Amino acid sequence: MEATDREAACFEAGVKFGALYHQFAGTPVSPASAPTLERAIEDAIENQPFCASVSVDILADRLDTTHGYDELTGEYMEVTVRVEYEGCLVETEMAMEDGYPLMRVVDVTER
Amino acid sequence: MEATDREAACFEAGVKFGALYHQFAGTPVSPASAPTLERAIEDAIENQPFCASVSVDILADRLDTTHGYDELTGEYMEVTVRVEYEGCLVETEMAMEDGYPLMRVVDVTER
Amino acid sequence: MEATDREAACFEAGVKFGALYHQFAGTPVSPASAPTLERAIEDAIENQPFCASVSVDILADRLDTTHGYDELTGEYMEVTVRVEYEGCLVETEMAMEDGYPLMRVVDVTER
Amino acid sequence: MEATDREAACFEAGVKFGALYHQFAGTPVSPASAPTLERAIEDAIENQPFCASVSVDILADRLDTTHGYDELTGEYMEVTVRVEYEGCLVETEMAMEDGYPLMRVVDVTER
Repeated sequence: MEATDREAACFEAGVKFGALYHQFAGTPVSPASAPTLERAIEDAIENQPFCASVSVDILADRLDTTHGYDELTGEYMEVTVRVEYEGCLVETEMAMEDGYPLMRVVDVTER
Repeated sequence: MEATDREAACFEAGVKFGALYHQFAGTPVSPASAPTLERAIEDAIENQPFCASVSVDILADRLDTTHGYDELTGEYMEVTVRVEYEGCLVETEMAMEDGYPLMRVVDVTER
Repeated sequence: MEATDREAACFEAGVKFGALYHQFAGTPVSPASAPTLERAIEDAIENQPFCASVSVDILADRLDTTHGYDELTGEYMEVTVRVEYEGCLVETEMAMEDGYPLMRVVDVTER
Repeated sequence: MEATDREAACFEAGVKFGALYHQFAGTPVSPASAPTLERAIEDAIENQPFCASVSVDILADRLDTTHGYDELTGEYMEVTVRVEYEGCLVETEMAMEDGYPLMRVVDVTER
């Protein structure tokens, strides 16, 4: 059967998360460069349709700086994405769980 | 409120789509190299959790080969992704619509 | 035969250019979000070894904003990268030439 | 001063390496999917100008399969890239050295 608005809203939220992760994974990042990267990721993904807001926190103190910088992976990011689609507000987040960057829907609200 | 299984399944499907698109957009591709890229994208994304199957068709005859190759974008891809999560089967697809690579949920079925 | 320091410096400059292009190609970008992306790209690539400076100019007025945003490609970027390796300073740039984002070495100077 | 043909050839080789790494870093990969990814990377990068051959070996037995798959990084790849530019043949390789995926020029030969 067809997706409901709530389901379509959840799909849209997933798209933003997958996009965010796979566009920016591998980016060279250091404690000094983390702030501009956080902001650029937020602004880039907020361009996408139905994306109400994105918040990215790069955990700079976990970066391995043995070689001066590290590559961005899910291990170093906490992210929340809010999508609004046809009156449905979906809140999603990514955080590490058992060594895996778990993305999940936190809340779905219909106005 | 919490997401239903159907909503969580739609979120998972969205993640796969966003991942697929933003991991591989920009890849150098020609009519000759399109088949190995199609297969690699399918196999890579099928690794992700709850991903039942991925089908990628690169529209090789639309590639601009003026310089011998082009860069992969949504304009050149037709994709279907099927996700199975807690007994919910979600079918999604991407195709061009009005010049935009539209990703959408085609069907949600509970077993 | 082995590479000279000048040749190794040119190789390093090439690595930065390929990295910059293929890390960020496909990023959603609009005139409003271009400035934070420019800065993040510069800061990210400057992390890499021997990278003296990076300058990125996103040509915001060329972006197709029919759908509110576009995807970053070489068509929309002018980039210069300076590498310093073992006393060799290499200046490189990318700009469009005949519809192709041409990357080239502008100058090699030994101190 | 302007780059020699040998220097331009080394720059071109660097571009291929940076492109290869940052296009495909982050790709979901498992021992089962590694072979199609290896081939797709080779075919994709060989499209680029002056690229004579690319060889990618994904070290499948090093992948962390705790969650069924891993993300591709330099740690799991051995790569050689050969570029031919204006009669100069450049051989380059990437392999781990002290925990860092070191890319380097192995040989430059003028015909």
